[in-house]
Amino acid sequence: MGDYLVTPELRSDERIDQLYSQDIKIIQSPSVFSFSLDAVLLANFAKAPAKKSGLLVDLCAGNGAVSLFMAHKTKGSIAMVELQERLADMAARSVQLNQLDNQITVYQQDLATITEKIAKDSVDVVVCNPPYFADQPASKKNPNEYLAIARHEIKTNLETVIKVSSDLLKMNGKAYFVHRPDRFLDLAALMAKHRLAIKRVQFVYPKAGREANIVLVEAIKDGQRTGMKVMPGLMTYDETGEYSKPIKKMLYGN
Amino acid sequence: MGDYLVTPELRSDERIDQLYSQDIKIIQSPSVFSFSLDAVLLANFAKAPAKKSGLLVDLCAGNGAVSLFMAHKTKGSIAMVELQERLADMAARSVQLNQLDNQITVYQQDLATITEKIAKDSVDVVVCNPPYFADQPASKKNPNEYLAIARHEIKTNLETVIKVSSDLLKMNGKAYFVHRPDRFLDLAALMAKHRLAIKRVQFVYPKAGREANIVLVEAIKDGQRTGMKVMPGLMTYDETGEYSKPIKKMLYGN
Repeated sequence: MGDYLVTPELRSDERIDQLYSQDIKIIQSPSVFSFSLDAVLLANFAKAPAKKSGLLVDLCAGNGAVSLFMAHKTKGSIAMVELQERLADMAARSVQLNQLDNQITVYQQDLATITEKIAKDSVDVVVCNPPYFADQPASKKNPNEYLAIARHEIKTNLETVIKVSSDLLKMNGKAYFVHRPDRFLDLAALMAKHRLAIKRVQFVYPKAGREANIVLVEAIKDGQRTGMKVMPGLMTYDETGEYSKPIKKMLYGN
Repeated sequence: MGDYLVTPELRSDERIDQLYSQDIKIIQSPSVFSFSLDAVLLANFAKAPAKKSGLLVDLCAGNGAVSLFMAHKTKGSIAMVELQERLADMAARSVQLNQLDNQITVYQQDLATITEKIAKDSVDVVVCNPPYFADQPASKKNPNEYLAIARHEIKTNLETVIKVSSDLLKMNGKAYFVHRPDRFLDLAALMAKHRLAIKRVQFVYPKAGREANIVLVEAIKDGQRTGMKVMPGLMTYDETGEYSKPIKKMLYGN
């Protein structure tokens, strides 16, 4: 793994993984939380504010994967918001490990109250990889509590996340979400309710001939609600069962 | 074109085309109206009522392509609804030409008043290839009036078509629409307003790496608004610029 200028304190169940395409190191734990392909897809799909004064906020940041993968895209600041102390702590140590302390701040806090820390109408870009599953009593939750909270709408829900995104954004600021296609209509209705106009979506299919299992969404605050574009379909795997070329490029670089 | 048991009366600008995959002949006119790939895609995507007592209604039927292409899928009855006299007349002659008079009825009528002829809550399946373009003053209309009406929301609009579809359908009846992706959010919002729950969508991409230009939608009346599936992406053309295999199969059969 090479030499670190800062040696992170790793807990016994943690390890350091690497996103080779961007030379980013990330503290993960198989027993607690590891980033998924969704985070890589979102970080690639989302555009970052170009200017140095720009502010990007990462809601439901988990162990910080999306922000860490996007850091190279912007000279602006990044704020991660993560409710769970253990995950926020992993994220903060990954920020240190990558020497991104000057660029990235971690807020361990409920996103519902984040406008106490980050002013409304002040943010250029929000990115969010929210819990995917509605918290219905019948749904089988993950026995791992960290993952259960990250995946199910236990501590937050889609409407709250979308409302907070909209509150944070400047006029014409952009929100980027990754979600499951079976929640896309909810997402679209809630975004319309909270002043976010969907402009671009991309469906990700596991491979040719299979139903989409991921959707990426770009919305603009107070934008015109017309002209949604559906970007070229993205395949996760190719015919041989390997990652497809675009996915390999995201993971490993050229 | 072979022998016909019924010789259709063709006008001077008309010709008979054939959908080889189903041995269906269809009267068209390059100067008035010809069916497009959208009709073939919709006819393939839509499920027809299985039973003999089933009723399928084709709104904005044009020259009848969707119904003609679906006739083999059902033992039930089909009703075409088309406002434009010239197109309804072409459709009626194509019905004759294919000896489908016993199965298909053509109503030359504004769909807004079709519940005077076809009872509300009586229809198993509605299919619709509606005008795609909002009738805004700025939009460049086709100088061909038949096409202008078929393509622009001049004589009807998306909300009317969706409301009428919902009115016609039985509980749990299904509506199938083809539209442009940039109107999908309108379609989804209007369907939600009029008791139609979207269950299945399919995006059609011209070829790999290009934005989707067609979306196919299946909705169910009074269905649960959860669990939308995004079917495998469909490519119109393959890498060599020829129709892709699935499209060839729709057009020419096996």
